[in-house]
Amino acid sequence: MSEYIEHDIDGNSVGIVKKKVFTCATPPDGMLLDNGVKFGPITLTYETYGTLNMEKDNAILISHALTGDAHVAGYHGEDDDKPGWWDIMVGPGKGIDTEKYFVICSNILGSCMGSTGPSSINPDTERPYGMNFPVVTISDMVKAQRLLIDHLGIKKLLSVIGGSIGGMQVLEWCVQSPDTVFSAIPLATTTRHSALAIAFNEVARQAIVADPNWQKGDYYQNGRKPDLGLAVARMIGHITYLSDESMRFKFGRELQDKTDFSFNFDADFQVESYLRYQGKKFVDRFDANSFLYITKAADYFDLENQYGSGSAVEAFSKTRAKFLVVSFTSDWLYPTYQSRLMVKAMKKCGLDVSFCEIKAQCGHDAFLLPNERLSSLISGFLDGAQHEISK
Amino acid sequence: MSEYIEHDIDGNSVGIVKKKVFTCATPPDGMLLDNGVKFGPITLTYETYGTLNMEKDNAILISHALTGDAHVAGYHGEDDDKPGWWDIMVGPGKGIDTEKYFVICSNILGSCMGSTGPSSINPDTERPYGMNFPVVTISDMVKAQRLLIDHLGIKKLLSVIGGSIGGMQVLEWCVQSPDTVFSAIPLATTTRHSALAIAFNEVARQAIVADPNWQKGDYYQNGRKPDLGLAVARMIGHITYLSDESMRFKFGRELQDKTDFSFNFDADFQVESYLRYQGKKFVDRFDANSFLYITKAADYFDLENQYGSGSAVEAFSKTRAKFLVVSFTSDWLYPTYQSRLMVKAMKKCGLDVSFCEIKAQCGHDAFLLPNERLSSLISGFLDGAQHEISK
Repeated sequence: MSEYIEHDIDGNSVGIVKKKVFTCATPPDGMLLDNGVKFGPITLTYETYGTLNMEKDNAILISHALTGDAHVAGYHGEDDDKPGWWDIMVGPGKGIDTEKYFVICSNILGSCMGSTGPSSINPDTERPYGMNFPVVTISDMVKAQRLLIDHLGIKKLLSVIGGSIGGMQVLEWCVQSPDTVFSAIPLATTTRHSALAIAFNEVARQAIVADPNWQKGDYYQNGRKPDLGLAVARMIGHITYLSDESMRFKFGRELQDKTDFSFNFDADFQVESYLRYQGKKFVDRFDANSFLYITKAADYFDLENQYGSGSAVEAFSKTRAKFLVVSFTSDWLYPTYQSRLMVKAMKKCGLDVSFCEIKAQCGHDAFLLPNERLSSLISGFLDGAQHEISK
Repeated sequence: MSEYIEHDIDGNSVGIVKKKVFTCATPPDGMLLDNGVKFGPITLTYETYGTLNMEKDNAILISHALTGDAHVAGYHGEDDDKPGWWDIMVGPGKGIDTEKYFVICSNILGSCMGSTGPSSINPDTERPYGMNFPVVTISDMVKAQRLLIDHLGIKKLLSVIGGSIGGMQVLEWCVQSPDTVFSAIPLATTTRHSALAIAFNEVARQAIVADPNWQKGDYYQNGRKPDLGLAVARMIGHITYLSDESMRFKFGRELQDKTDFSFNFDADFQVESYLRYQGKKFVDRFDANSFLYITKAADYFDLENQYGSGSAVEAFSKTRAKFLVVSFTSDWLYPTYQSRLMVKAMKKCGLDVSFCEIKAQCGHDAFLLPNERLSSLISGFLDGAQHEISK
């Protein structure tokens, strides 16, 4: 274990944590999905950090993004060389302070990181669902999370926090269960997926289904996975998480391990090498079908249409949460103008909304990177919410 | 033939035009490429419109973009249902007026639209070059065009005009052959391909080489082409030619031929359907290997590094052309800031430069679409240039 990690575990880490599992919606009842089907059983893998107080009013739900998982903070063992995906934000004394709050994160329905998804075994056939898995929505993901929160005995969440697709879940929570959410922090997100965002997702999906190893989604048992297609899909994703500005500063036209052009089709530039590496690495940890399903859920996300007949104001009309909305200057997947529209609608509903556009060079990914401004904004907002909820 | 076309041919069209062919760099001499290899023979397919005047000072060279060809204007026959790719700009009384100017366009080296490229027969093996075709650069393309212009007996081009990769050729002409270019109009382009643009090209290339039908580029003779990979590559391209704004206005979240979500992986949204259609249509007209080679040439393009040891000012120092530089507000592939940097460097060299950023919603593609502002800018600039050259 590296010095850095030891220091971290000793210092401000939540330390060694364990995955937990919750199963619900067992047949014959199941959970009613947006597509009209009753689906179950649903298993959710989740983690918690900190302690739920006596009043049960210090619980914070973190919603993860497309390829994330329940492992937000800490380590799974002494030999674990990497902490959870938002360890910079979640821990003792951090932006989301586990000495004060009880933090929960559940892997989303449709994922492949421990919750029920297309790679899970269909109990009816005893084979992986593949494309027989139902097309789920952000709303379905939140409905399943709601069952977990009920199971944990929490009647009101102090806050729901998440970025990107996690931010969509945050908004969905506020609209779907207005009585359960006291405050909310949607980061780098939107109330309706734009044509540009759909376009990127669609091309990524086409890259997967064009791979003959995809085999109409039924690739789990014959050892041939659509790795090449999934790698291309991930590369497309990575471009959208960065930005013109961030790529310019991060890579520019720097060559990778060479002083002149190769005059062949090797990766000449650092940016090419970076993307190839990200693509290759991804296929070991993520399921191609889950990528299809979760991107489709994001594309379907349209709070205004689902809850407000096309009006964001109507969609937020029953919401009671106090909001901190955050966007990032160089995010071109969910640009600031989309957050502004959201904030405008919230304000028209008389909601208590704080909005901040953070200057950041690193594109959409900014919400995941160390940022003191973001940490202190979140920390201050949560302090205020905790103070109010205890009144 | 449709009414529209008849009208067009009668009215302001160059009418029925013919492809011409020029072969040069025949072995053993060949043409020295940037990779150090002497290559030949090189065949260029080209078209011309209008008449070269006695003084031979009214010739305009148009450079085409990635997937373009020599067929800029007019029709190839009475039954042709579509005019050339820039027919809106080139013809009698149009922005580039064929009653005044002698207009030439040559298909670029490396393409598949009639000029020598990877799908051409290698005379040494009597089989298509495939990946044995040399990696060519924008500079190589221009060197070959120069041989054509010499062959046509033109000592000075009144203007060189082109957008995107065509714009790179325009800049390359001005720097490579300063005595041959009297004026130049680089549209929606850059002096050095950015990391973002390289990233998109690289992902598109990876989509092609991931297709098992690509067969290391040797797919010409067994009836299996990398159509699925090339379609994905084209879809990626199309996203970059549009923009967030243009997609919002063009597609929004409109569904394609349905009133509700399919809850499967069909194309639900119009933007998905559009991209799938563009991808499918493309594979019938373009060669996957040419896509690889031309995108690589664009990625290598770095005028500052090739001619100025990293300085744009030094790169332009020997140039004498009068410039009209045009960018478009919603172009995020070659954003305005890149044109501004180019203009700044040109001005530091004391060059006569006009710059215009045109307000356009339609992204990078704007330079190809009908735009009165652009037509009148080009027309006025050319009038001025013609006046000056005749002095």
